[in-house]
Amino acid sequence: MNALYDVTAIGNAIVDVIAPADEAFLEREGLPKGSMVLIDAERARDLYGRMASGLEASGGSAANTVAGVGSFGGRAAYIGKVADDQLGAIYTHDIRAGGAHFDTLPLSGGPATARCLINVTPDGQRTMCTYLGACVELTPADVSADLVEGAQVVFLEGYLFDPEEARRAFAKAAGLARGAGRKIALTLSDSFVVERHRHALLGFIETQVDILLANESEITALFETSSFDEAVAAIRGRVDIAAVTRGSAGSIVLSGPATHAIAAEPIHRVVDSTGAGDQYAAGFLLGLAQNRSLDVCGRLGSLAAAEVISHYGPRPEVSLRDLAATRGLNLS
Amino acid sequence: MNALYDVTAIGNAIVDVIAPADEAFLEREGLPKGSMVLIDAERARDLYGRMASGLEASGGSAANTVAGVGSFGGRAAYIGKVADDQLGAIYTHDIRAGGAHFDTLPLSGGPATARCLINVTPDGQRTMCTYLGACVELTPADVSADLVEGAQVVFLEGYLFDPEEARRAFAKAAGLARGAGRKIALTLSDSFVVERHRHALLGFIETQVDILLANESEITALFETSSFDEAVAAIRGRVDIAAVTRGSAGSIVLSGPATHAIAAEPIHRVVDSTGAGDQYAAGFLLGLAQNRSLDVCGRLGSLAAAEVISHYGPRPEVSLRDLAATRGLNLS
Repeated sequence: MNALYDVTAIGNAIVDVIAPADEAFLEREGLPKGSMVLIDAERARDLYGRMASGLEASGGSAANTVAGVGSFGGRAAYIGKVADDQLGAIYTHDIRAGGAHFDTLPLSGGPATARCLINVTPDGQRTMCTYLGACVELTPADVSADLVEGAQVVFLEGYLFDPEEARRAFAKAAGLARGAGRKIALTLSDSFVVERHRHALLGFIETQVDILLANESEITALFETSSFDEAVAAIRGRVDIAAVTRGSAGSIVLSGPATHAIAAEPIHRVVDSTGAGDQYAAGFLLGLAQNRSLDVCGRLGSLAAAEVISHYGPRPEVSLRDLAATRGLNLS
Repeated sequence: MNALYDVTAIGNAIVDVIAPADEAFLEREGLPKGSMVLIDAERARDLYGRMASGLEASGGSAANTVAGVGSFGGRAAYIGKVADDQLGAIYTHDIRAGGAHFDTLPLSGGPATARCLINVTPDGQRTMCTYLGACVELTPADVSADLVEGAQVVFLEGYLFDPEEARRAFAKAAGLARGAGRKIALTLSDSFVVERHRHALLGFIETQVDILLANESEITALFETSSFDEAVAAIRGRVDIAAVTRGSAGSIVLSGPATHAIAAEPIHRVVDSTGAGDQYAAGFLLGLAQNRSLDVCGRLGSLAAAEVISHYGPRPEVSLRDLAATRGLNLS
C-alpha cells in the first residue's frame, strides 16, 4: 500500500508557556536545568504564579515534529489528546494549520489541556515542568488504524511512557505499524524519562524500534554509562538506524557498521533550545520517508534544529522547505 | 500627594494571536494592511480557521505600554476587562508578572477574553482583526479612583472609543485624573479609530489631554490632511506635548514652540511591528514621569520600540532598564 503520510506521530498534546528565567529561579524552584519534570495541577498553578510573563505556543514533542514535517512540505498526521477548552481549540487550530491531519476526539469534562511551563535561561537552555492534564486520557481507542497503517514512518515519543493509558496506546500503534510493515521510530525524549522507564524502553527498542532518535544525555542514561562511545557501541545493531544529537557538536547517524558524522548548522545565538530535538527528528524522518541518504537526512535535521533554537517557541517560524532549498536540499 | 504609580493605563485587555501571512492572504480576506478592524465572534472563528499556526501573547495597546513601563523598572497599574477563562487567567498572570498592579474584576458568564488576530507579512507589518469579547463590559465601575488618582500619568488608548461602556469609563478616568491634578496622556491608536471617532477624539484632546501620542497616519487622519507638516502644525498648541512617531524616520516631539527630532534606534530587521507604538509610549511616558528631558523621553521610546519590533510579540523580551543602561540612560 502506498503511504498516505510521510510521518504519523503520537504524543502528549501540550501547550507550551515559555518565559525567561534566571539560574537563581531554577535553584529556588528546585528544577534541574534542562530537564522535564511532571507536576500536578496545584504545583502548576503555584509555579506559574512565580514565572515571568510568557508566550504561549502549541508544543508537545511529537506534535512539534509533525509541524516540522509539514514545514518541509511533507505529509503528516498526529494523534494526541487535548481538552475541549480554549487552549485545546488553539492547539487543534495550530496543528491543522500546519497541514497535518488531526482528529483525535478532545476530552470533555475531564482535566484541562496539558501545559508545559518552560523557563528559558539566558544561555538558551529550557527547563520544563509538565502538567499532563488531558493527555492522561489518551487511550488505545484514540489510535486510528488508518493513520498508523497509512504512514511511511510511525513516530512515538518516549514521553508517552509516563501516562499509563498512553503506554497502551503506544503498544497498539507499534503493533499496527509492525503489522502493516511500516517503520517505527522512537525518540527517548528526556534523560529523566529514560531513568523512569529504562527497562520498558530497552525492551521496546529491542523488539519494535527501527529508528531511534536520542541526544547524548538520553543515550548515555539508557545504558547507564558516562561514556558517549560506550553508549554508541551499545545501541549499534539494536536498531536499524540510530541518530544521536550532540548540540553544537552536531549529530552522528549509525546504520549497521557505518557511522555518519553530521555537522551542526551554525547559528548566531541560541535564544531558546526548546524543540531542537523535535525539529531534528522532523528533518531526519522526512528525509528517510523520502528515501534520501542518511547524510542528507542528518543535514535536514540539523537545519531544522538550527532554525527553531534561534527564536522562542518550539516550531519553525519560516518554511523549512524554502530554507532547505537555499542549501541545495530540494524536497519532493 | 506623591504618586504611587508612574503610569496607570486603561485599555482593551486583549490576547494576541500572531501568525505569519502573505500579502495574498490579506487581499483574499479584504484586510487593509497595517489596520485594525473590529470583528464579531463568528468572523473571528472563521478568519482564525484560515490563519497559519501562531503564537499567543498577552497584548492590548495600553497593557503593552504598562508591560514596557515595568520592564524599564517603573511602577505601573492597569485597568482592563478579561473573562474568567483560560486566556483571561494567562492575561492576568502576565500583567502581574510584569510587576503591574491589576485587579479589574474578570467577567463571568459573558463573552470570552478578547482576541486580536494578527497577521504578520514578510515585511514585518501587522494587520489586526479584533474580537472585543469581554472588553465591551469594561464599565465606569471598573475605574478605580485609587489607581487613577495615584498615577503620575494616566494613559488612555483611543481604542477605548469603540466599546460604548468603555467610553464612559474613559470619561470617568479623565475626570478623576483632572481632579487630582494628574497628567492625561492619550494615544490615537489607529487611523481607522480616528476615522470612526474623529469628532469625539478632537473634542477630548482639546479639553482633557496633556500629552498626545500618535503616528504619522493617525495624526494626518485626525486633521484630514495628507500633509504631515500641516498635521503637526494643527496639533501644536492644542496639547502640552505631542510625540509623533514615523517608523524608521524616528519621531518628533512638540512642546510649545519647540520641536525635538528623535532618531529611530537602528535595528537589523523588522520581524513584527506589533507593539512599536505601545513601547514607544512606555519609554516616553516613563521618562516624563521621571522628569527627564523630552529628548531623553524620546530616546527611551525609540529604544523600547526597536526592541519589540525585532521579534514576534507585543511586549519586550529583555529588560528595557538594562537595555537603556547600555545606552547611558539610567533610570531611577
